[in-house]
Amino acid sequence: MADLVLTTFDWVPEMPRGFVRDLRVRWALEEAGLPYRVESVPFGDRKARHLAHQPFGQVPWLVDGDISIFETGAILLHLGERSAALMPTDPRGRSDAIKWLFAALNSVEMASLPWALLMFANVPTGSTSRKPLDSFLTLRLQRMEAVLSECEWLAGRFSIADIVMADVLRLVERFGGLVDYPACHTYMTRATARPAFAKAHADQLAHFAAAD
Amino acid sequence: MADLVLTTFDWVPEMPRGFVRDLRVRWALEEAGLPYRVESVPFGDRKARHLAHQPFGQVPWLVDGDISIFETGAILLHLGERSAALMPTDPRGRSDAIKWLFAALNSVEMASLPWALLMFANVPTGSTSRKPLDSFLTLRLQRMEAVLSECEWLAGRFSIADIVMADVLRLVERFGGLVDYPACHTYMTRATARPAFAKAHADQLAHFAAAD
Repeated sequence: MADLVLTTFDWVPEMPRGFVRDLRVRWALEEAGLPYRVESVPFGDRKARHLAHQPFGQVPWLVDGDISIFETGAILLHLGERSAALMPTDPRGRSDAIKWLFAALNSVEMASLPWALLMFANVPTGSTSRKPLDSFLTLRLQRMEAVLSECEWLAGRFSIADIVMADVLRLVERFGGLVDYPACHTYMTRATARPAFAKAHADQLAHFAAAD
Repeated sequence: MADLVLTTFDWVPEMPRGFVRDLRVRWALEEAGLPYRVESVPFGDRKARHLAHQPFGQVPWLVDGDISIFETGAILLHLGERSAALMPTDPRGRSDAIKWLFAALNSVEMASLPWALLMFANVPTGSTSRKPLDSFLTLRLQRMEAVLSECEWLAGRFSIADIVMADVLRLVERFGGLVDYPACHTYMTRATARPAFAKAHADQLAHFAAAD
């Protein structure tokens, strides 16, 4: 029986399918070839047991033996420490993967996810009120464009940092936000062409479709 | 001579003083009692050398021997691995500190920093266009209120997670956002009453004042 148990929602609406964050964990597990199984919690009624594992009432969380981990960043770091396929083991490579993991989450996604929330809510792109957030994302993408013009993967080779960064950019692309950033687009396409992504993505879609 | 070199801007405007992110690193270094020195890069002219250390043109970064680290999350994790004063060493305590570190950055600050940008830009709090982001922050603070009503520190004892979470909440408080969250406020006050915070905060203010 698999040691690793990934928990996600039993069902979600059409809109977020393919983007629920268990995808990042599935992708990492597939890259590493680690055996795991998937369990579900109700989307509609988030009980105390759910909050005990994930205090914000979100998904995913991962149970590894007697340790339960929430936050995809923390889960990916944990898996990176279990598998050299996910994170270099030399000090400098490890440090590069970790800093780019945090950069994806706290420098890029901190700008892109709020921007995507406004896009989803149809707040017009020209409106003054969203200007600070549009500028915030632009600054980050301009710098990522420069970085990704000069490297194939963020930490010298594919790592957990690329799983998060590529998935962050996928959501920007969904709302047409990568049109001026060809290197970001190429990088995202390169990452999502990996068989482990395709498997993770198909598995997430099938999981939610099974509950319809 | 100190191994650890923290780099921040030579000067910043009045507004961000006391909130520039080198504060989090100074705070951690003071808690751990690790020797370090502070260097500066120009605020006004961000050159290639700056971008080589910090690809987004921000601060801080930390040099430890031959490794240069950007992203405060990555720096704090690195320091946590150097000092038991910053992170428990048992597997469960370590895992708790790491997941709450990511939670502070990617679940709470991802909602609070964009909200603060809108507050800073004087986008009216009632306006429809900012509603998705106001709701996002409210959801996060409601859950943090429940968590912080039941614990003194996030990982059972003070850790790098509390440095980031308390600093994230300080910025919310600056714009009056903690008024309905007494447990969040009490926690933030408890954390910032620590001598290491006071020293880090005073040192940052003195650093920027010296350049006026």
